Amino acid sequence: MTQGFFISFEGGEGAGKSTQIRRLAERLQAAGHDVVVTREPGGSPGAEAIRELLVNGAADRWSPVTETLLMYAARRDHVERVIRPALARGAVVLCDRFADSTRAYQGAGGDAPASLIASLEDHVLSGTVPDLTLILDLPAEIGLERAEARGGAARFESKGLAFHERLRAGYLEIARREPERCVVIEANADIDAVTAAISRTVDQRLER
Amino acid sequence: MTQGFFISFEGGEGAGKSTQIRRLAERLQAAGHDVVVTREPGGSPGAEAIRELLVNGAADRWSPVTETLLMYAARRDHVERVIRPALARGAVVLCDRFADSTRAYQGAGGDAPASLIASLEDHVLSGTVPDLTLILDLPAEIGLERAEARGGAARFESKGLAFHERLRAGYLEIARREPERCVVIEANADIDAVTAAISRTVDQRLER
Ligand SMILES: Nc1ncnc2c1ncn2[C@@H]1O[C@H](COP(=O)(O)OP(=O)(O)OP(=O)(O)O)[C@@H](O)[C@H]1O
Ligand SMILES: Nc1ncnc2c1ncn2[C@@H]1O[C@H](COP(=O)(O)OP(=O)(O)OP(=O)(O)O)[C@@H](O)[C@H]1O
Ligand SMILES: [Mg+2]
Ligand SMILES: [Mg+2]
Repeated sequence: MTQGFFISFEGGEGAGKSTQIRRLAERLQAAGHDVVVTREPGGSPGAEAIRELLVNGAADRWSPVTETLLMYAARRDHVERVIRPALARGAVVLCDRFADSTRAYQGAGGDAPASLIASLEDHVLSGTVPDLTLILDLPAEIGLERAEARGGAARFESKGLAFHERLRAGYLEIARREPERCVVIEANADIDAVTAAISRTVDQRLER
Repeated sequence: MTQGFFISFEGGEGAGKSTQIRRLAERLQAAGHDVVVTREPGGSPGAEAIRELLVNGAADRWSPVTETLLMYAARRDHVERVIRPALARGAVVLCDRFADSTRAYQGAGGDAPASLIASLEDHVLSGTVPDLTLILDLPAEIGLERAEARGGAARFESKGLAFHERLRAGYLEIARREPERCVVIEANADIDAVTAAISRTVDQRLER
């Protein structure tokens, strides 16, 4: 039985995921929780090696199906070696991107078949799915502006605005289909307002 | 419609796959065929980068499921960028290992679920399966001795004799279940005898 609590943060480039995870981790740690902050693709030594293949190189280096398979290889390693052990000892796991990023980036944004992605979720995650997913939502062009101002690895950012609009629609569709697991957070607001919305949601769910 | 002819070579370490592919390629080229020799994991620039993760490091670096996903990521890239274009222009493709290696190494040898592997074959290969598979069969200890004498990348060789015996049984089971596609070649014989058996089989199939 899983004793811990698994929260994933989702949303397009520059939505504020990393910023908000840092703030939430501090607050939960101060409240006495065992908190594990991790990210995808990556989060374990093997998955970080796979990440290097994913975030570098030309935008069309990998087809959507190949990219989906690499993401799931990294995810499986991360789940087996970091997430499951942390949940088993009762930790709160805060994960910067998880399976919904594949549905949004390779599925809605690329054209990897939904049936492939669903089959991978079934066979590869074996029930390790988030208890709560926070989807940070904002217009694609605002997120891209923020990410550009910040700089960093740019393979996905280079895919263009139309791609990032499909991505946003993909995330909102996931939230519509799984309202129990997913909460959409208005991310086109100042940082403290986003933090407050996330705090309310997380406290409510942790109390259950 | 595929115009070419796709032959995969399978079998444990040191069975003689690379040796026999070189000989068959020469003979088919001399007979006027457009021949593409390739290998897995690898065979395209992206897949060769993934191969580096697979053949190096400790024997338990990847779990069987993670390894299966990495193999299929490499395979998808190889199929899209090398194998399908070659078959579309009418070439004979000789591939050193293909999907049966995953069934044997990660499935029979490791413990990746057969249902995951079957789902990947369905979704990822999309019909690009060999017209003929030659399974070079010999006792595991003889193959390991040959491979050891030759030297080279050793991650799979280091997995021990019991693993390689499960592997051999896995290959024979594939041949039993798909007798139309697979031909078992007695590989515990001298090199010229193996070449002759392969020549007979290939010529017969190419004539059809
Ligand atoms: N609510 C906000 N308003 C304005 N700027 C913000 C807000 N939240 C974050 N930022 C800034 O936008 C940039 C991107 O934020 P952050 O790195 O947290 O986003 P992210 O979702 O993790 O992006 P990526 O997907 O690229 O990792 C940073 O420079 C951050 O300081
Ligand atoms: N029929 C044979 N009898 C004896 N030695 C052989 C025979 N076939 C190949 N060899 C030798 O065994 C070694 C392994 O052969 P080869 O590299 O062709 O095997 P392989 O199946 O490609 O192995 P691997 O899976 O490790 O790539 C080589 O040194 C080769 O010369
Ligand atoms: Mg971030
Ligand atoms: Mg070889």
